[in-house]
Amino acid sequence: MTEPSLDVVAIGNAIVDVIARADDELLAMHSLVKGSMQLVDTATAELLYDNMGPGLEMSGGSAANTLAGMAALGRSCAFIGQVRDDVLGKAFSHDIRALGIRFDTPARTEEPPTARCLIMVTPDAQRTMNTYLGASQHLPPAAIDADLIRSARILYLEGYLWDPEEPRSAMRGAMATAREAGREVAFTLSDAFVIERYRDDFRALIEDGLIDILFANEVEIMSLAQINDFEEAVALFAPKVSTLVVTRSEKGAIAIKNGERFECGAAPVREVVDTTGAGDLFAAGFLSGHVTGKGPVDCLAMGAIAAAEVISHYGARPETDLKALMGGFLHA
Amino acid sequence: MTEPSLDVVAIGNAIVDVIARADDELLAMHSLVKGSMQLVDTATAELLYDNMGPGLEMSGGSAANTLAGMAALGRSCAFIGQVRDDVLGKAFSHDIRALGIRFDTPARTEEPPTARCLIMVTPDAQRTMNTYLGASQHLPPAAIDADLIRSARILYLEGYLWDPEEPRSAMRGAMATAREAGREVAFTLSDAFVIERYRDDFRALIEDGLIDILFANEVEIMSLAQINDFEEAVALFAPKVSTLVVTRSEKGAIAIKNGERFECGAAPVREVVDTTGAGDLFAAGFLSGHVTGKGPVDCLAMGAIAAAEVISHYGARPETDLKALMGGFLHA
Repeated sequence: MTEPSLDVVAIGNAIVDVIARADDELLAMHSLVKGSMQLVDTATAELLYDNMGPGLEMSGGSAANTLAGMAALGRSCAFIGQVRDDVLGKAFSHDIRALGIRFDTPARTEEPPTARCLIMVTPDAQRTMNTYLGASQHLPPAAIDADLIRSARILYLEGYLWDPEEPRSAMRGAMATAREAGREVAFTLSDAFVIERYRDDFRALIEDGLIDILFANEVEIMSLAQINDFEEAVALFAPKVSTLVVTRSEKGAIAIKNGERFECGAAPVREVVDTTGAGDLFAAGFLSGHVTGKGPVDCLAMGAIAAAEVISHYGARPETDLKALMGGFLHA
Repeated sequence: MTEPSLDVVAIGNAIVDVIARADDELLAMHSLVKGSMQLVDTATAELLYDNMGPGLEMSGGSAANTLAGMAALGRSCAFIGQVRDDVLGKAFSHDIRALGIRFDTPARTEEPPTARCLIMVTPDAQRTMNTYLGASQHLPPAAIDADLIRSARILYLEGYLWDPEEPRSAMRGAMATAREAGREVAFTLSDAFVIERYRDDFRALIEDGLIDILFANEVEIMSLAQINDFEEAVALFAPKVSTLVVTRSEKGAIAIKNGERFECGAAPVREVVDTTGAGDLFAAGFLSGHVTGKGPVDCLAMGAIAAAEVISHYGARPETDLKALMGGFLHA
């Protein structure tokens, strides 16, 4: 088995975020569940957009955000995801490559357009996401370069991309390839509603030993377990993966690795502005520690620091120098 | 003469900004003059974009930014500018309407695409702008609704839009209409390089008494005068307009109204992040005071407060509640 040449390859939605401040009435008017992600069709996307305030457009996508954080921390990354050859697709491609992330998936030349996510940020800093999947749902299994998968220490997958059929199949293939090559597979559960739709699939992946590192938040791990007690839910899945990482917002996060439990508090934030990307950047910090041989406590701390940065401003990708924020952790 | 129903109607470039951090080497590599605006063709725009970091896309345009500030301060506004019916054009239109600004100019259905401005922000917070004018330069004189012009207390024009021929002609027509209706005309010189190209035109507008309120910064007023002494340059033009407003960055601003001179200092800023929009928002604060009957000192203070807000974050439109920042000025 050859040494991996990349730290991580991720498969995820290739999305441009449209971020706008919103009040609770707007969410209520459209029956939106605060903090969740819903998939919307063109008509709903247009209706919501018409009712949103002025937008800020930035490249997003859960796994792509995680890579943005890892690249900022000096890790070598590649991304696989589907855009169309339109203005937003060009912006997404430009932005991810400008971060030094390898991105070779050819753009589609036909409808639908590049995915966008209308993100409403309420004054309590919670984000409510309305995703129009567009081209992103057409990532074909053929887009998975097996050599690329084999070349990376970690394959990182987002649960959000389990919804559309082609990418799901593509991710299954990639997991098999990574497994055969002796690579680690990391998976984020993404969202409670996604779990509602694919609980059996996700549980089967875990039971079949296909996931090494599982990322979830409190709500997600309880939803996956269908148990209303956090500790019981954790106890159910911790033995089934090498590492289980559960984020708990302001209560910090825990990691359970080979039966041993580690905890860390949340990193301090002057003002929580927009929680979009908190989980994505936590994963970025954690995995950056992991691939450089840090122990779980350091990995958790790095996750907490990266998450704290991203929630202190609008947008789901880091704005300040993550390496500088990590201080001693990068050199320890 | 009927009472105006709107506070301001502005004619300006309809542009989406692409904002990215950049270092001085990038500017040097492309021979860009820091703090200036240059017009670029498609090929140059693509080359610069390829070399830029990840972008943040936001609606911009100088006069449109001024309206965003005035609308935030409770003023009634209308905008005239040209987009194409593409993704960026839709974003621009959505954003300006979401601010409560009337915007009825029909989108063009043919090439070129909606204008964009690649804005490089260096660590010293200076912005260097590279504008691809696209659809914006095709604003036809027919897009000027004379009734709309007559309905607004102030017609506000940006010097940037003097470059392309059709909008220049459209602005000349609008000025004549406003004049006949007894409305005030406000004009911003925009940029020293624009003045280089159109000094004679701008001087003629002033000599002909077509401009009531003239906005400039130090460099611009000296360039217009072709005099290297600030006070001499001010003395040359102050008698030719009702009100001359000159911004001086951290030195504050001056206004000379009917021969009397007023000054104010710069409003405090915790950290200057991005100076894009500083002049636009100064004009927004000043004009918001002016149309509500404030004296020049209050108008200057309101301009300084609005400018301070916009330079404290990335992007050229206000992010925080301008009304709240104005405090007593709005109710005095």
